[in-house]
Amino acid sequence: MNRGQKKACILSIGNELLSGKTVDANAAYVAAQLRTLGIPVVGIYSVGDEEPAIRRKVALAAQEADILMITGGLGPTDDDLTRQAIAGFMGVDLVLQEDLLAALRQFFERRGIEMVRRNAIQAYIPRGATAIENQKGTAPGIRAEFDGKVLYATPGVPSEMRHMVDTFILPELRALATGQAIVVKRLRCFGAGESKIAEMIGDAMERGRNPLVNCTVHEGVVTLEVVATAPDASQAEAMAVRQEESLRVAVGHLAFGTGSQTLAEVVGERLVERGRTLATAESCTGGLLAAMITDVPGSSRYFTHGWVTYSNAAKQSELMVPPEMIDQYGAVSEHVARAMAQGARRCSGADYAIGITGIAGPDGGSEQKPVGLVYIALDSRDGAEASRYVFSWDRSSVRLRAAQTALNLLRLKLIG
Amino acid sequence: MNRGQKKACILSIGNELLSGKTVDANAAYVAAQLRTLGIPVVGIYSVGDEEPAIRRKVALAAQEADILMITGGLGPTDDDLTRQAIAGFMGVDLVLQEDLLAALRQFFERRGIEMVRRNAIQAYIPRGATAIENQKGTAPGIRAEFDGKVLYATPGVPSEMRHMVDTFILPELRALATGQAIVVKRLRCFGAGESKIAEMIGDAMERGRNPLVNCTVHEGVVTLEVVATAPDASQAEAMAVRQEESLRVAVGHLAFGTGSQTLAEVVGERLVERGRTLATAESCTGGLLAAMITDVPGSSRYFTHGWVTYSNAAKQSELMVPPEMIDQYGAVSEHVARAMAQGARRCSGADYAIGITGIAGPDGGSEQKPVGLVYIALDSRDGAEASRYVFSWDRSSVRLRAAQTALNLLRLKLIG
Repeated sequence: MNRGQKKACILSIGNELLSGKTVDANAAYVAAQLRTLGIPVVGIYSVGDEEPAIRRKVALAAQEADILMITGGLGPTDDDLTRQAIAGFMGVDLVLQEDLLAALRQFFERRGIEMVRRNAIQAYIPRGATAIENQKGTAPGIRAEFDGKVLYATPGVPSEMRHMVDTFILPELRALATGQAIVVKRLRCFGAGESKIAEMIGDAMERGRNPLVNCTVHEGVVTLEVVATAPDASQAEAMAVRQEESLRVAVGHLAFGTGSQTLAEVVGERLVERGRTLATAESCTGGLLAAMITDVPGSSRYFTHGWVTYSNAAKQSELMVPPEMIDQYGAVSEHVARAMAQGARRCSGADYAIGITGIAGPDGGSEQKPVGLVYIALDSRDGAEASRYVFSWDRSSVRLRAAQTALNLLRLKLIG
Repeated sequence: MNRGQKKACILSIGNELLSGKTVDANAAYVAAQLRTLGIPVVGIYSVGDEEPAIRRKVALAAQEADILMITGGLGPTDDDLTRQAIAGFMGVDLVLQEDLLAALRQFFERRGIEMVRRNAIQAYIPRGATAIENQKGTAPGIRAEFDGKVLYATPGVPSEMRHMVDTFILPELRALATGQAIVVKRLRCFGAGESKIAEMIGDAMERGRNPLVNCTVHEGVVTLEVVATAPDASQAEAMAVRQEESLRVAVGHLAFGTGSQTLAEVVGERLVERGRTLATAESCTGGLLAAMITDVPGSSRYFTHGWVTYSNAAKQSELMVPPEMIDQYGAVSEHVARAMAQGARRCSGADYAIGITGIAGPDGGSEQKPVGLVYIALDSRDGAEASRYVFSWDRSSVRLRAAQTALNLLRLKLIG
């Protein structure tokens, strides 16, 4: 591929996109990644699982851009037609790659699953193209050059696509990209809404500034993204670091991490640093808090015990919550949250224990105890503290927000 | 517009789409709505805020489709260029609509906000086109006819777009839509890969068939989607039902549900039907199984107790797993999985209990016990059975697949 300012076009393949069944989040991911390299995306096209339609759109994209990014349609079934369309566009045939076939065979053998014949299609790629290794699935990606342009095709499964983009495609494109260096930093915040945080950071988000600050919200976590552009990387890095620092000062303890860090990761790091352990006792979150904690590799160093005491009987037998307490205050109460945390800490011998009880809905709410009401308690050598929250939206949001808030309470406790 | 089978093309306008900042959920919404009318979408294009680019894509869409649905670019700022591009494509000028201007003035007056001059642009529409009232914001939509085709442009703000689509555009298209009714059914499968299932259903997925069968995979669940097209709804329904039934026969016990049902929902329904209860004892899944079970509203009717025994000490103290057993076979073993399930069933008094122990990775694997090795046990009045699995990819996949497989084992047990 020639050097110089490159433009990209993204093609997303799949009937599920045209039927509205799937929102095309893959395209947004690819576009955002290309942006970090300063490569503008000039178009995004969703195309159905039809070979001539895909071929036509590949041809159109090749007219408009230098880099073609294709996701989807590389699977083993009859509606996976991307590799045929690429071969058709390039005017070449599909050739069997023996090494890919061997890798596929090995994959199925390792798992003790029979490899059906149609899987072999994934070992074919257009003549002259090369395969991109798939470390997260069976379908290899495809890389092809033509007329000084480059085309990458990845599977549509988000985890496979992302891994291929991050580990193979972006590094290659980074080497080709010229001119302006772009450095992106992210500051992750929890505990206030987007508009509140926007207010705290003043005019940092004004358009046209460099570094540019963008703000996105996902599952309650507000991410401030700093994009610094400069003639060279060290200059861009310095600008981004300065901006990130000033944002950090502005938002104070709301900032919990950087990059793509989660609350559970940050809490885990703090626990490891201090050599402390953690146990959980959950009612309305039903194991979600424990699942978030243990999603972090190495969490067995600090997480030992978790209880999901969904029934009152379980709260009594497993966590020694007194039945009179449940009778008097109800299972969803400050007292019971505290007793759950204390029971979990005592039974596990952990340094910290979290107790959560609430009403996730959609049923079970009342005037006094509405759906979304959650009590979260944290027990430690300093005693047990409990707080009351009312979270919004649906069952999943209430559960998620409760688990995140519990992690955030522990984070704030750990940093004093 | 002429009658007959119509095709649609969707254009989404905005730099925020090309930068990856915004996922194009508008297009999916419009596509899903059109589909309910039996109008197929042949393409979705995201275009930046550039007048010539928008004009070119409108022209392209006009070649491919009879109905053009455009969202975005109708606001009052300099980067809102959709109305100019439509006028340019149609070869007409923009004309001021006095009634729109009066309505705009009134809107600002009512709110006591000064109407800045640039807002007036929203009162201009292409000559020959008509305005679509916006009941949720200031920018009117645009409806234009040309060459027997129809074009609708709506603002990109989701609430404004949806309201305009629902209250104006769909009713109009419904009146125009001819004949063809479309009925969609989904069959959800678990326990085999996409390619295996494709083989089992034979040629059902061949392109061009009616009903059409599509196949998608998300987190291990394979969804077979049946799309039946017929002159009337009852005929389409009958065709879809027949096709679904034949798929169900072909995949046998792999089919666990329909629509968007999850394994946890289906297992919950079976437990409620039979008046049975469930408890869980998790090691490597760390609460994920319990979280999936309790994500279902009303799960407190059958789920009572869950343990996350992440440490060996927890397995011993909470679930009475004998320390000698852990010493002899290791914590990740068939014996321990079984003992965990038995301990959970005994302590909870539940009818069924699941025990899971494994190596989620990325560390902790060995030659004999690789990362991904998971033992899952199910204890019931019939005794405890345990099975060995090796799941692939990363920590999250191993955990997810283990939890799903456990639910599936229980499902198979419940249906005998």
